[in-house]
Amino acid sequence: MPSERKLAEQLEVNRSTVILAYDELRALGIIESRMGSGTRVTKYKWGATPKHTLNWQRYVKGGNFLPNLPFLRRVREALEKDPSLIDFASGELGADLSPLEEINALMNENQHTEYLGYDNPQGFAPLRESLVSFLDEYRNIQTSDSSILITSGSQQSLYLITQCLLTPGDAVAIEDPSYCYSLPMFQSAGLRLFQLPIDDKGMRPDDVRSLYKKHRIKMVFINPNYQNPTGTLLANNRRTELLKVVSELGIPIVEDDPFSLTAYEGTPPAPLKSTDAVGSVLYIGSFSKIAASGLRVGWMVAPRSVVERLADARQQMDFGLSVVPQRVAAQFLKSSYIDPHLDRLRMELIFKRDVLIEALERELPDIVSFTIPQGGLHLWCKILPVVDGNKLFEEAIKKGIIFVPGSVYGSDDGYVRFTFARPKVEDIDQGISKFAKALRAVLD
Amino acid sequence: MPSERKLAEQLEVNRSTVILAYDELRALGIIESRMGSGTRVTKYKWGATPKHTLNWQRYVKGGNFLPNLPFLRRVREALEKDPSLIDFASGELGADLSPLEEINALMNENQHTEYLGYDNPQGFAPLRESLVSFLDEYRNIQTSDSSILITSGSQQSLYLITQCLLTPGDAVAIEDPSYCYSLPMFQSAGLRLFQLPIDDKGMRPDDVRSLYKKHRIKMVFINPNYQNPTGTLLANNRRTELLKVVSELGIPIVEDDPFSLTAYEGTPPAPLKSTDAVGSVLYIGSFSKIAASGLRVGWMVAPRSVVERLADARQQMDFGLSVVPQRVAAQFLKSSYIDPHLDRLRMELIFKRDVLIEALERELPDIVSFTIPQGGLHLWCKILPVVDGNKLFEEAIKKGIIFVPGSVYGSDDGYVRFTFARPKVEDIDQGISKFAKALRAVLD
Repeated sequence: MPSERKLAEQLEVNRSTVILAYDELRALGIIESRMGSGTRVTKYKWGATPKHTLNWQRYVKGGNFLPNLPFLRRVREALEKDPSLIDFASGELGADLSPLEEINALMNENQHTEYLGYDNPQGFAPLRESLVSFLDEYRNIQTSDSSILITSGSQQSLYLITQCLLTPGDAVAIEDPSYCYSLPMFQSAGLRLFQLPIDDKGMRPDDVRSLYKKHRIKMVFINPNYQNPTGTLLANNRRTELLKVVSELGIPIVEDDPFSLTAYEGTPPAPLKSTDAVGSVLYIGSFSKIAASGLRVGWMVAPRSVVERLADARQQMDFGLSVVPQRVAAQFLKSSYIDPHLDRLRMELIFKRDVLIEALERELPDIVSFTIPQGGLHLWCKILPVVDGNKLFEEAIKKGIIFVPGSVYGSDDGYVRFTFARPKVEDIDQGISKFAKALRAVLD
Repeated sequence: MPSERKLAEQLEVNRSTVILAYDELRALGIIESRMGSGTRVTKYKWGATPKHTLNWQRYVKGGNFLPNLPFLRRVREALEKDPSLIDFASGELGADLSPLEEINALMNENQHTEYLGYDNPQGFAPLRESLVSFLDEYRNIQTSDSSILITSGSQQSLYLITQCLLTPGDAVAIEDPSYCYSLPMFQSAGLRLFQLPIDDKGMRPDDVRSLYKKHRIKMVFINPNYQNPTGTLLANNRRTELLKVVSELGIPIVEDDPFSLTAYEGTPPAPLKSTDAVGSVLYIGSFSKIAASGLRVGWMVAPRSVVERLADARQQMDFGLSVVPQRVAAQFLKSSYIDPHLDRLRMELIFKRDVLIEALERELPDIVSFTIPQGGLHLWCKILPVVDGNKLFEEAIKKGIIFVPGSVYGSDDGYVRFTFARPKVEDIDQGISKFAKALRAVLD
């Protein structure tokens, strides 16, 4: 067969189109490519015309598990297609904020010589032990290693909870807006979602009571510290009230707390779990937003019976996590690197936030409004004129930047989530000019 | 509060009982333990009597996702409780067979300096590229990196397939006996399982045709090379026939191929995928049985549309795998270590197998029978007299060894799976004497 380049020229199509076609034919076993010796029709081509052709599309469309939101699939495609896009969409730290040198140093200091067998279903014991002290010292949570489940991140913690602790048809309460709406896993688990509207002080505990009366909600999902996407901090009186309400109702709270240690100034806000008198709170934490998302290390603090149920299920899903990144995480938590890293992280986040705010105020005065976040990775930006979120999103990609449209989080078109932790400082300013051009183009 | 030791003495109970009780009270937030300063009742104890107590058991018993088989939970408990048990149960390589020095050397040679962000949903690109050459050279499978999905092992590959490509109520065909019966995930996905009985040449392709006629099976799960648990090798004429049958019926095969590179003598058997003319085969491979299960690195070769569907779902379940072990795996595949390691692995497996066989023939002549495996990690042992599998299992644990009872794999009480790859050579002989004592005790 001609080379991909040649065929693309002959047919006057984009080379990537030919690459795709060749991939499909390879997957079907009709052609094969060998290193060096190019692509040829496989010697088994005689079989290429079965009586019934296997219809993969039927299978791909099957399954209870729902595909991701089109907007988020579009984000992924766009970033894969054009890595030069200025990325305000990926909810993670940029390379400049991750403790890569520290992690590398720790990996060199501590050579891996132990047996690399299947891990404890609850997660690497030394990591759970380091977490006991870390959670006590940094989050004022007193727990024991047997009450900790190591997960591959908050996402897996939420997935296990929705799959194992809730039954299809169950009603749950979720903040509005919330990153939870970007997770079809709730629908895949057959849950009915009810909204807890948030204002500048977070959600209102009374709403939990009324949702319970109306719908017998079984669980409340909360992201109280620098909420994703709004950046809101749940007010202290509401925290006390919320704990009171759920303990009266006898339902649990899932507290997702990935951002609190990024608190820009002063002591980080205490988690609900630290004043959870009756054990209503399933506490979820992670390394992803404070160190490196690529380690894939998160944790859950829960009653032993819950930890065991979820650990058992997780064994069946992926047979547990690799010990290698868990060892690094355990060493990092025990190391002297953690405090200096968190200090640097906070300073850099303030700096990036301010660069973003300056750019927005310069480029789009009177067109956007926002509350200045005091922690976290995101800025939640309201666009004052009426705008078509989809058009704006596509126009911005054309202009060379990408963000997550507010509609993904269950709010209306007029919002945008900018993750300022991800792009390089020097790109933030330029990115916002591109965004401004895109917005103006759509508004005209 | 008194220390755990003190209270155990006062109440004259086992200390572990007190530790458990304290853990539960800690989880409920009723007591708290601080490093050095012992355990005390938390200052929030006032809240410890809510109007409705939260009933965690109701939640733990909820969820569509089924708990693991009692026998397998029992195996895990027993091994956690007494690590000195001689372990013929864990289906993995022992430390003596894993390339730990090689892996450690590779980690030192290749310091991790790249950005540790979220990985590509399909898996670390350099690993997928190394796999393209590895699969071509070692398995005669020609594919491209876009048709490969990196998973945390075969378990996750199977989980994604059952969750995303099959719909509750679908019928699937599974070998009998098969490790698949040890995976409640099939039931959790609401699938109807139909059996393909295996003889000394593996399953019979005609059975697929008749199951399709009767039940319209949607997929066939096969473990053709040194099948788990029986060690059977699917005969060549049956492979050809099977591929013919499924291509006529237009249904896919899931080929799980973890053991083929352990082939004790001669060239490893070719996978079905290598002669898959029409793309009927989803091919699953893994590092777990040939290198180190603790890396948690496996792979799937599938049509691009399938890879994309499963990658999208996996993002929602755990947000992808850590890059760290994937880098090590990629380096290992490209390194000069792999061939010497596989040669050593095969020799050691033959040696361990022979030690096991000698011990069985010495200790239990005329009481057990088995086919000598030519590859893989397991020996499938038939117990000739009628025996209560449950009694034998518990008695063996008392005597200090553990194995997996045949009933876990869907066969009757009279079988035992011995994984000889896991225990130390010096323990195999002793372990079988203990097993013989247990068996005699149960038979008397």
